[in-house]
Amino acid sequence: MTREAGRRDRLRATAVEAGLDAVLVTNLLNVRYLTGFTGSNGALLLRADGDDVFGTDGRYTTQAGVQVPGLELLIDRATVPALAVRAAHLGTGRLGYESHDVTVDGLHTLEGVLADAATGGTVPELVSIRRAVETLRAVKDDAEVQALRRACAVADQALAELAAEGALRPGRSELQVGRELDARMLALGAEAPSFETIVATGANSAIPHHRPDGTVLAGGDFLKLDFGATVDGYHSDMTRTLVLGHAADWQQEVYSLVVAAQAAGRAALAVGADVRVVDAAARNVIAAAGHGEHFTHGLGHGVGLEIHEAPSIAAAGEGRLAAGMAVTVEPGIYLPGHGGVRIEDTLIVTDGEPELLTLTSKELLVL
Amino acid sequence: MTREAGRRDRLRATAVEAGLDAVLVTNLLNVRYLTGFTGSNGALLLRADGDDVFGTDGRYTTQAGVQVPGLELLIDRATVPALAVRAAHLGTGRLGYESHDVTVDGLHTLEGVLADAATGGTVPELVSIRRAVETLRAVKDDAEVQALRRACAVADQALAELAAEGALRPGRSELQVGRELDARMLALGAEAPSFETIVATGANSAIPHHRPDGTVLAGGDFLKLDFGATVDGYHSDMTRTLVLGHAADWQQEVYSLVVAAQAAGRAALAVGADVRVVDAAARNVIAAAGHGEHFTHGLGHGVGLEIHEAPSIAAAGEGRLAAGMAVTVEPGIYLPGHGGVRIEDTLIVTDGEPELLTLTSKELLVL
Repeated sequence: MTREAGRRDRLRATAVEAGLDAVLVTNLLNVRYLTGFTGSNGALLLRADGDDVFGTDGRYTTQAGVQVPGLELLIDRATVPALAVRAAHLGTGRLGYESHDVTVDGLHTLEGVLADAATGGTVPELVSIRRAVETLRAVKDDAEVQALRRACAVADQALAELAAEGALRPGRSELQVGRELDARMLALGAEAPSFETIVATGANSAIPHHRPDGTVLAGGDFLKLDFGATVDGYHSDMTRTLVLGHAADWQQEVYSLVVAAQAAGRAALAVGADVRVVDAAARNVIAAAGHGEHFTHGLGHGVGLEIHEAPSIAAAGEGRLAAGMAVTVEPGIYLPGHGGVRIEDTLIVTDGEPELLTLTSKELLVL
Repeated sequence: MTREAGRRDRLRATAVEAGLDAVLVTNLLNVRYLTGFTGSNGALLLRADGDDVFGTDGRYTTQAGVQVPGLELLIDRATVPALAVRAAHLGTGRLGYESHDVTVDGLHTLEGVLADAATGGTVPELVSIRRAVETLRAVKDDAEVQALRRACAVADQALAELAAEGALRPGRSELQVGRELDARMLALGAEAPSFETIVATGANSAIPHHRPDGTVLAGGDFLKLDFGATVDGYHSDMTRTLVLGHAADWQQEVYSLVVAAQAAGRAALAVGADVRVVDAAARNVIAAAGHGEHFTHGLGHGVGLEIHEAPSIAAAGEGRLAAGMAVTVEPGIYLPGHGGVRIEDTLIVTDGEPELLTLTSKELLVL
């Protein structure tokens, strides 16, 4: 059995339990997770009886044959409605769908084609499965962890090479550094950067999600780099903050505090831990030093086929950690107008110590 | 008045005509088009009376201040519901929304917060504005055309450099070539490739959307490159097909036919032309030569903030061309198991000749 077939069976069990005859999976990443298909249009009709149907359009006939062998293939430009019609013709009673993915217009289209296709017979009833596939995706299997390891290794290596070559020096612009980091990750085998690389220096480092611009790196400034690589569809996510030249006392202090908070957050990653407790473990360290108001975002998030996915590790988060979850731990302190520090790793929750995937040193690197 | 303010006023006129008091714009590219905001979370409450409200979350407070000056700023993690609440408090009667963007779950959330916020008063009525913003976006203004010109120039330059350096030679793999093309575009100032670059050689060139793999370039094979660069958010799109070494007679023939079809398609780009007539102009050339069944996709598509946007130039398309539309013209002939040719340009429709933005030669390049 392929990995994807095992995943479909886990979803099937959930669907059967919910009394569904079939599920129409439309979220493209969920489709990829359940079938292995990497094209830009595809959907899955998962059936309680096990005879699943994969749908795509004519551009992907060959690719679907290679990536989704063994499933019945339906080729139609209007892929999702065509799969719904197929479900109706198969006599589906209760049809699950992803209400967080299907748009209002999309639902109207589905309702229309189901009514038309069921002429005489019963119209299938559409029932939301909510985020059932995302819930499965939160826990990674071995192949997924392997891809995440490689994605993290590419990011580690790219930063190491740039630092070794002196590319992170005063006089260069944020944009130059960001583009070189991106190009280096691609050269090392990434499909793409995980997201728009953040390079923030000086006062810009106090902006949590600063977009790199023409600002020039200057001696004595913080340089915050938040970036990642995508490998086999899986995203890495890492932040490091360096100092260019001499680190002032306030920079040392803020940096040490974030290091301590980040270590506390990592130490709290355990199977069964409430995500709010994990968030608090890091946040309390920062708050105790009087910087609570300067840590303005959640502690971390799941990472996988999406750069942000379940679970959310935040004060307003919900749920508990499980073995195999891939998460970030990324506290920060931002002093508006002065500068900021964030330190972020990607890790895997295990029954023992979490596995650290981003291996770049967290010592304050003074370049 | 900024460009974005002018665009908002055009949407406002449409909204007023439709009897709406306000419009909640949620599609992130539409929000960018109407406000200039480039972050990953933002929405716009456009009001008939002109007092628009821009919403985002705390990560983007600074960025919103810079990119969206002059608009009231609402910072809330639950951005879209918060803007809906604001609309209710402002006494909005009919509230437009994007039913092709809002999900079923999103609509339920909106309905819930509107009912709660209107305690005692009238609950705002949600009315779809359909693709009103996309319709505006189909016609580009000068700044958009400038960005498209730069995006096309980056793609032209990247390919020219790779060819000049001998990077497109037998023995190299599709993946290597694709990654170098991507890296070169980034080095030349692209924010990202426009889409996953297609590099297809030999029999793979017969697959319209082949994903580059380890296949090695060999003498006598076609090499099809479909790629583009994103600059200031705007996408270029170009396909060129080369021959490595000696071109066989059948390759010359197929290539010449696609060149002729592509020229016919470009010649048909005129203000007021029905998109189906434009598609037919190119398709007829290929069909007349007996290859109709080997041209398996539409002739072209609009391009801008999205790689595929309105208008669709296809046999099943609708509507007419207007001055300022940015479109691709990309006929192809695919001979399964043998090889295929596609030639694609990005152009601007004008009152006179269309402006060609992708300037790489369409002579058969034999490397």
